[in-house]
Amino acid sequence: MSPTQPNEWLLLERTVRFGEIDAAGVLHFHHLLRWCHEAWEESLERYGINAVDIFPSKLDVTDSLRVALPIIHCEADFRLPIKCGDHLLIRLEPQRIDVGSFQVRTKFQRDGQEVAIGLVRHLAIDSTTRERCDLPQDIDLWLEASSLNLGLRPV
Amino acid sequence: MSPTQPNEWLLLERTVRFGEIDAAGVLHFHHLLRWCHEAWEESLERYGINAVDIFPSKLDVTDSLRVALPIIHCEADFRLPIKCGDHLLIRLEPQRIDVGSFQVRTKFQRDGQEVAIGLVRHLAIDSTTRERCDLPQDIDLWLEASSLNLGLRPV
Amino acid sequence: MSPTQPNEWLLLERTVRFGEIDAAGVLHFHHLLRWCHEAWEESLERYGINAVDIFPSKLDVTDSLRVALPIIHCEADFRLPIKCGDHLLIRLEPQRIDVGSFQVRTKFQRDGQEVAIGLVRHLAIDSTTRERCDLPQDIDLWLEASSLNLGLRPV
Amino acid sequence: MSPTQPNEWLLLERTVRFGEIDAAGVLHFHHLLRWCHEAWEESLERYGINAVDIFPSKLDVTDSLRVALPIIHCEADFRLPIKCGDHLLIRLEPQRIDVGSFQVRTKFQRDGQEVAIGLVRHLAIDSTTRERCDLPQDIDLWLEASSLNLGLRPV
Repeated sequence: MSPTQPNEWLLLERTVRFGEIDAAGVLHFHHLLRWCHEAWEESLERYGINAVDIFPSKLDVTDSLRVALPIIHCEADFRLPIKCGDHLLIRLEPQRIDVGSFQVRTKFQRDGQEVAIGLVRHLAIDSTTRERCDLPQDIDLWLEASSLNLGLRPV
Repeated sequence: MSPTQPNEWLLLERTVRFGEIDAAGVLHFHHLLRWCHEAWEESLERYGINAVDIFPSKLDVTDSLRVALPIIHCEADFRLPIKCGDHLLIRLEPQRIDVGSFQVRTKFQRDGQEVAIGLVRHLAIDSTTRERCDLPQDIDLWLEASSLNLGLRPV
Repeated sequence: MSPTQPNEWLLLERTVRFGEIDAAGVLHFHHLLRWCHEAWEESLERYGINAVDIFPSKLDVTDSLRVALPIIHCEADFRLPIKCGDHLLIRLEPQRIDVGSFQVRTKFQRDGQEVAIGLVRHLAIDSTTRERCDLPQDIDLWLEASSLNLGLRPV
Repeated sequence: MSPTQPNEWLLLERTVRFGEIDAAGVLHFHHLLRWCHEAWEESLERYGINAVDIFPSKLDVTDSLRVALPIIHCEADFRLPIKCGDHLLIRLEPQRIDVGSFQVRTKFQRDGQEVAIGLVRHLAIDSTTRERCDLPQDIDLWLEASSLNLGLRPV
């Protein structure tokens, strides 16, 4: 049931909103990292993975998730000013690092020019013991499908 | 060039993201008011109004906007828990209050049930003198077109 | 061990930061409601109530909270422009509504002038059954001590 | 009139608030970068620099700033879970990179343990031409005073 064309889950769009712009008239920087996380969530959803199977929800206490995916590192580079109303193309480049961690590089383009790039790195841990463990199978499948399309590359 | 069916600019969608959910497992309340503003921006954009014609941008100092639309009041009511991954239908009900102010009531539904409702009220002021003035013509047209579709109603 | 002077837990301060200001040069509205919640948290803390006894924490699954305090309503009025670097005085006016709900009115002043006012209303629910219940005792004590100082007043 | 002890402007504190915690019960990552920026602002303020002399403000159009300080890079590493109510000690390590750029490394500690570290890099540009220029004198003085106290070190 998953899409077969990577563009369906690795190529997204976003319009920059007024509240994300500061008094210098450009994107206030940290929103970009929020966008990276939201793009990742949208990518998983488009690929066919349900939010409740990946993201913890206090309300589902009877059936909580075995694996948590905390972020251990993030970074961003800003190349060109991003302004209110800009239509951005978002390209995700997910990459498995090892059996228990992965990262997503997220490139933001406007009119064919790269305006910013973000990177978020996740570690899989057992949500009870807090020890490192393998990635959930759903994430593995999404990484595999994404890698095939992007070509494998070294970290 | 504006759309002629109100659903094209008054009926939007949004998926709830992980970073908007707090440790109680539900939407952290103030994000709803951010959603209201972003829905308003998306509505204007779909109707055919450019962000740069309404929202100030420090970078355009040579051609700054004559009218600002500060928010003087906002409120929200929360009816049902909103959770991560929820697909929400967003219905905007814009309403002119007088020649120099308007408000937008924004209703959030999930599976046909209203989960929350927000309201944001704007005042038009001259951006130089800070005195009250008439609404910009673009906003007036958007309000007019929206009212026709919704039917006129008292504040 | 609680403080005995209300000013110690009902009168706070905050400096407006750059990322809270939009391209119109003033506070982007929804941050005010975030400030209201954070002021409430700081007030409880100063009164002597620990965050872990009121706010749910997924990590403490073995000892989760019996009562949740979801927000059912919030509102804000904006009187004067709030700018970057402004030093604001924050005055909380908590008020019990009935045995199972309360609200906090939060007034923001700059140089003796009221610039904005927010209101957040909470309902107590049993975190398992999601049914209405009585307020937690800690909140009751904080409301009682606060009311004595402010004088009782009608909703 | 500036403080003479670096701890007065390079050593700050912050309490983690409920809205910054996600449904996994820990800090939602991107808030840390917001904290870095806010800590930088507080550091400048404590050192004796006014926000209006560094941060643009649309309202002051007649007297706008000659130099803007856009962020070109940021990153963060997360070492230990950060939870609601945590009291964090924040240590800033500012560093001049060259005459037109600087960065601030910001270390977050809880009970003597480092829980996270952030880094934000700024470039000075002429706000009219958008060309690179020298850092504003105020920032230079703050960097100089901070370096003396921290000891000079290579990038």
